[in-house]
Amino acid sequence: MNYSHKRVLVTGGLGFIGSNLAVRLVELGASVTVVDSSCSGCGANPHNLAPVADRVRVIPADIGDPHLFEEALQGLDLVFNLAGEVSHVHSMAFPERDLEINTVAQLRFLDAVRRLCPGVRVVYAGTRQIYGIPRYLPVDEDHPVEPVDFNGVHKYAASMYHLTLSRLGQLDAAVLRLTNVYGPRMALHIPCQGVLSTFLRRALLGQDLEVFDGGDSLRDPVHVDDAVHAFLLAGSVARLPSRTYNVGGAEALSLFRIAEIMARAAGVQVTTRPFPAERKLIDIGSYVSDWARIRRELGWTPQVGFAEGLRRTLEWYGARLEHYLDPAQPTFCGMPEHRGQRHRVTLIPA
Amino acid sequence: MNYSHKRVLVTGGLGFIGSNLAVRLVELGASVTVVDSSCSGCGANPHNLAPVADRVRVIPADIGDPHLFEEALQGLDLVFNLAGEVSHVHSMAFPERDLEINTVAQLRFLDAVRRLCPGVRVVYAGTRQIYGIPRYLPVDEDHPVEPVDFNGVHKYAASMYHLTLSRLGQLDAAVLRLTNVYGPRMALHIPCQGVLSTFLRRALLGQDLEVFDGGDSLRDPVHVDDAVHAFLLAGSVARLPSRTYNVGGAEALSLFRIAEIMARAAGVQVTTRPFPAERKLIDIGSYVSDWARIRRELGWTPQVGFAEGLRRTLEWYGARLEHYLDPAQPTFCGMPEHRGQRHRVTLIPA
Repeated sequence: MNYSHKRVLVTGGLGFIGSNLAVRLVELGASVTVVDSSCSGCGANPHNLAPVADRVRVIPADIGDPHLFEEALQGLDLVFNLAGEVSHVHSMAFPERDLEINTVAQLRFLDAVRRLCPGVRVVYAGTRQIYGIPRYLPVDEDHPVEPVDFNGVHKYAASMYHLTLSRLGQLDAAVLRLTNVYGPRMALHIPCQGVLSTFLRRALLGQDLEVFDGGDSLRDPVHVDDAVHAFLLAGSVARLPSRTYNVGGAEALSLFRIAEIMARAAGVQVTTRPFPAERKLIDIGSYVSDWARIRRELGWTPQVGFAEGLRRTLEWYGARLEHYLDPAQPTFCGMPEHRGQRHRVTLIPA
Repeated sequence: MNYSHKRVLVTGGLGFIGSNLAVRLVELGASVTVVDSSCSGCGANPHNLAPVADRVRVIPADIGDPHLFEEALQGLDLVFNLAGEVSHVHSMAFPERDLEINTVAQLRFLDAVRRLCPGVRVVYAGTRQIYGIPRYLPVDEDHPVEPVDFNGVHKYAASMYHLTLSRLGQLDAAVLRLTNVYGPRMALHIPCQGVLSTFLRRALLGQDLEVFDGGDSLRDPVHVDDAVHAFLLAGSVARLPSRTYNVGGAEALSLFRIAEIMARAAGVQVTTRPFPAERKLIDIGSYVSDWARIRRELGWTPQVGFAEGLRRTLEWYGARLEHYLDPAQPTFCGMPEHRGQRHRVTLIPA
């Protein structure tokens, strides 16, 4: 992997995974530009790029407005495309907002990329959410696409843009379908960013962790350093044998077990309560990734076990917690209106 | 199938398949409301509803503006959702227009439907285009989804809205994945509505038919009466065993053979020419539907052979041709701007 002096664009580079990737790219000698809209409700945090603040160019723009940063799309060696909304809960409450962020903006962005930088490698942050409720475990890339929420529909449409434009020879895209990623720089101030973010926030605040219905669903958490490594590999191989790759964790753990490990490390307790009805509707049960393809084709394997990765994560947040629970940061959840969405949608009427 | 006095909404009911369905529903005694935006470039034609003009309520609105017709969404027994843009060529030249028509508008429409008419049966007009270049023939519903153009991406996203909302218990949807449909009321004045429309227009005008590269790709054309029958069945069974159904023709014919049959009936010739490069990029080769599922579960089979269906179609257009080639009708193709699309996208630079 030679990133030295490579001109790299990272969309969503103020967010959780994007900022970890941007920091690593700077360390590897790349010339990094970040585009990020700091959309309220998504994971952007200016503190995320603190260690490289003077070595990264940050363009405060929505990727759906590429006319605002056309010059930054010229002469690129590589695009890491991580801008997006990850919250399944947000997507159900505000479907049109999710469509605009995850699909409309991506179409406009990719249209500009193929025009200004034809044939460029684009590595897109997809999601395991597109598979929906697994028909079998572990889930490989050929599993049917049956998302249970709007986030899955919209992220899948965006991934199809990447694949369709690659088939047409206009881009050279790879889609990474990420499982639950955790680690430093997660947005902890937003209540609906996924179970690992929720657990981590509560653990860091010394609050007990709650699992729903006993927490026996499996997850395979992947540490952000491993996720970043997958992006770096997908961005640097000369030729991509495939275009979609699952990226998952080394261990399949029940949510109860995940909570237990975290609670022990943080000195809190685990309690259980019934699944809230709105959450149950879009719950996928157990999920475990089959990541044999990316191991075989790109040589990637997860390196960080959950207990060790969690220890590092808790330590990292120790001195920085105030920046990640800042009540002045936009949280979005519960906002009645956003970006033209006319009304909040309630799945289960009160 | 008892449609007598059923309150039925048909979106896209001024278009080709929608109007054939609306006419049939009126004949069956249903109370029919049509919503149609007469979007330029799509298939709407006021003459399509001529036989039932005084027995159908037509609301001239875009389904993406459901606040304009909220009262029409209350108390419905059934929704046939056929509004959309079908042109693959248009979708590549104007991706954002296709996204707005086929995805954004559908999200807004379904959001209103589930709110105002929760749990209603919705039968959606999907497309075989979502499968892309077939990995095997005939193509069944489990074939991977790999569209080669934006139209396929956007229609698939809309079909996932239907399926996701059904899984959540908010709609009771069926998605019909239609192959090439032909017959009375096809829009002949638009140059990019598919090969059968192009052939039919030329045949009716006494012009020779052109096939690309010898025309050996297979298609399984389905007569619109058979397609309408599939909609009527999917709308009337008490319980849908599955939610997606391929709807295809009885015969797999090469495009050359299709042209030959049409040319013979119309007294013209068939010529071949090289595939235009922009078309070749989004060509899917041979396609043949496996429609065993809808036969097994809903008892549907195609009844109209191609030669007979074509004879009926040519006869039907005989006295009405002026209404279908009216140069005053909007044709869209080649328009430089539309619905906020900033520029025409060229796949192959001139």
